[in-house]
Amino acid sequence: MRAVDLIRRKRDSGELTKEEIGQLIAAYTRGDIPDYQMSAWLMAVVLRGMSRAEIAGLTEAMLHSGQVLDFSSLTARKVDKHSTGGVGDKTSLIIAPIVAAAGLLVPMISGRGLGHTGGTLDKLESIPGFNVNLSLADFRGVLERCGCALIGQTAEIAPADKKIYALRDVTGTVESPALICASIMSKKLAEGLDALVLDVKVGSGAFMKRTEDAVLLAELLVDTGKRMGKKTVALLTDMNQPLGRTAGNALEVAEAIEVLHDEGSADLRELCRELAGWMLFLGERVKTVEEGRKLAWEIVASGRAREKLREIVRLQGGDPAVVDDPRLLPRARHSLEVTNPAGGSVAGTQCEQLGLACMVLGGGREKKEDAIDPAVGLVFHKRLGDPVQPGEPLVTLHYNSDARLEEARRLVETAYRIEPQPPKDVPPLLHRVIGA
Amino acid sequence: MRAVDLIRRKRDSGELTKEEIGQLIAAYTRGDIPDYQMSAWLMAVVLRGMSRAEIAGLTEAMLHSGQVLDFSSLTARKVDKHSTGGVGDKTSLIIAPIVAAAGLLVPMISGRGLGHTGGTLDKLESIPGFNVNLSLADFRGVLERCGCALIGQTAEIAPADKKIYALRDVTGTVESPALICASIMSKKLAEGLDALVLDVKVGSGAFMKRTEDAVLLAELLVDTGKRMGKKTVALLTDMNQPLGRTAGNALEVAEAIEVLHDEGSADLRELCRELAGWMLFLGERVKTVEEGRKLAWEIVASGRAREKLREIVRLQGGDPAVVDDPRLLPRARHSLEVTNPAGGSVAGTQCEQLGLACMVLGGGREKKEDAIDPAVGLVFHKRLGDPVQPGEPLVTLHYNSDARLEEARRLVETAYRIEPQPPKDVPPLLHRVIGA
Repeated sequence: MRAVDLIRRKRDSGELTKEEIGQLIAAYTRGDIPDYQMSAWLMAVVLRGMSRAEIAGLTEAMLHSGQVLDFSSLTARKVDKHSTGGVGDKTSLIIAPIVAAAGLLVPMISGRGLGHTGGTLDKLESIPGFNVNLSLADFRGVLERCGCALIGQTAEIAPADKKIYALRDVTGTVESPALICASIMSKKLAEGLDALVLDVKVGSGAFMKRTEDAVLLAELLVDTGKRMGKKTVALLTDMNQPLGRTAGNALEVAEAIEVLHDEGSADLRELCRELAGWMLFLGERVKTVEEGRKLAWEIVASGRAREKLREIVRLQGGDPAVVDDPRLLPRARHSLEVTNPAGGSVAGTQCEQLGLACMVLGGGREKKEDAIDPAVGLVFHKRLGDPVQPGEPLVTLHYNSDARLEEARRLVETAYRIEPQPPKDVPPLLHRVIGA
Repeated sequence: MRAVDLIRRKRDSGELTKEEIGQLIAAYTRGDIPDYQMSAWLMAVVLRGMSRAEIAGLTEAMLHSGQVLDFSSLTARKVDKHSTGGVGDKTSLIIAPIVAAAGLLVPMISGRGLGHTGGTLDKLESIPGFNVNLSLADFRGVLERCGCALIGQTAEIAPADKKIYALRDVTGTVESPALICASIMSKKLAEGLDALVLDVKVGSGAFMKRTEDAVLLAELLVDTGKRMGKKTVALLTDMNQPLGRTAGNALEVAEAIEVLHDEGSADLRELCRELAGWMLFLGERVKTVEEGRKLAWEIVASGRAREKLREIVRLQGGDPAVVDDPRLLPRARHSLEVTNPAGGSVAGTQCEQLGLACMVLGGGREKKEDAIDPAVGLVFHKRLGDPVQPGEPLVTLHYNSDARLEEARRLVETAYRIEPQPPKDVPPLLHRVIGA
């Protein structure tokens, strides 16, 4: 195999065999193929695309560049959920305990927030003492003891993906459904799963703004999962407004705990019920999705999910008392209400701007190296279609430094479109299910 | 300027400004932009193309990455010719002396052969003692003394092109009309020319096999030359069969000398008259192209072109006696005739295979580092449309080693298509003139 021949083939819209992709990725990971050849190949992939078979081949090559966890000695089914990223999405903190409390195993390897989106690891780290950097042996230990463990990607998991992702970031080759799919799936399949539920976000706060792009990605993800022998389903869910009432790490943990107390906002509860229902169904804990939804909420209402979260937090070094008293979480020193002078109804939000406002306050990262402030964030008072009185607050900003407060305020103000008449349609939370 | 933003813009079919291209190329040449970003940008250029303004901007940026020769103190007009490469193309060795003998200046920076094509530098080096590696000061000196000098690209000339070309070679980004155009023109314009004649080859022995591709490249070259304020014209000429009767370095020098003795094959004489005619016209030595053609051949017939070649060879360290006795050139020890068993007419040639046969015998390079044997090559006995008796020789192979003789023989045998009836049409030598 000569790398330049594979680059030329892809440039000319040809297809690579599974073996060729495997050799290319293995050689690159070893350092036998230089970055400049890989980046040319990646750009050709971005502009020429990949067949389903190529995507599966790439996923498998990246997956096998590192360790694939083997939990086959644990008899319960292994299931996980992955979200493509949005604003205010704290569902993992809620459904992982629910599904583990139902007796399934949830070996969850999560990511950090970047740009306008949040990440599960950052949220977990706002719990005092919580350690997301477990070794794979400790990850297994926690999983065995309580049915769920939550960590970050380690050096052993899909190192090819790590190396390729860093290159894509600086060579304009991030925006490819094929590459996004292979990156997501190679990491998730390394968890040794039986089933995977994908939450593909679509709308103004998602990476995929257009339904057709989100559908394509969802189809690729599902197809790749199934080709690799995993039960896989994708839920296309709405990200035209934040999920729930908060964005910001500690604020979101508190909101997740609220749902585990069977309280919280309707949209967040609905999405958690849906995702957990599918996980329980694909994990064969129940016979139908509807049965799964019901079981999920029985577990919440009974307090067993809350108890499971306490257990996870304790086993991963955190203070389980936060589950009963969220005031133990970091809290910002100041707050500021952003109001709208004119009354009317919320007709639309530039949801990505709300995520950026959270980042600007210090709750997210502009660059991978940035440190974050767990306490800051946004509390949302209005959802699409809600009436707004003149001067009524839309959002409360929680902040510790006013260095970029004005920028955050402006982002929030211009994110909301208020119109005299209520909007005719508000997008549904669940757009469609793909792969069922 | 962030390189990744320029990569993304080109990826999304956007246009870069002249300033942005200038910064990108300057930063890459300095080493401030890594190869992996440049190769991603190059692949985006290959697949998205460039506007005429972008190509001119890229040409200018590469041109100004190094020295631009300034011969403005020499009053005669500076003209040159560039060929996109073919099989048996020895026109430079003939027309450079003709045009210099007519009183114009020909500061010619040439290339080496690669793959199936020959290169002027390799041909010149088959003349015992001939030095193509003059310093720029010596280049100027020879030019001042005899009106013509022939050297290879130096480190001072368009270093950006050198660096980018090496990267393109290993990243599958060679085949872009925009990049080919900028590469050619940045080097040619560094010669400080007033006018340039481009010989764009088309057909089975050219890089551009299809007329539409050759026309596009010719148009880009002419447009770029004119944007840079140079008189520029492109001749689209036929490369469906070798030019003249030989391919191979010393064999081609001997054939060129033959033409300077007013002998040689009709096609080679015609193309030289055409190219020299245009150079004399664009260099304002004559009032019409036809006058140029006539003057060119008067200079050949009078022996002045031959005398000019002696002068050039002597000034560049070579043995001028070869001009009168080509037997002083290196000669291969063995020869083999390739015949065709069936009779008929030559209906077509896979001309690239004939160039490859020459390379396989040692007359060309597979890789840039390969050494070449100046003595070996092919002598062609039949042209398109010629009748062939059963068993009559098509080609004589001149070789020193039989290591790959069989491979060369097979390439030649399968390159000729012999049919019972003569072909209806034989392509004209000059397809069209672009930019006149």
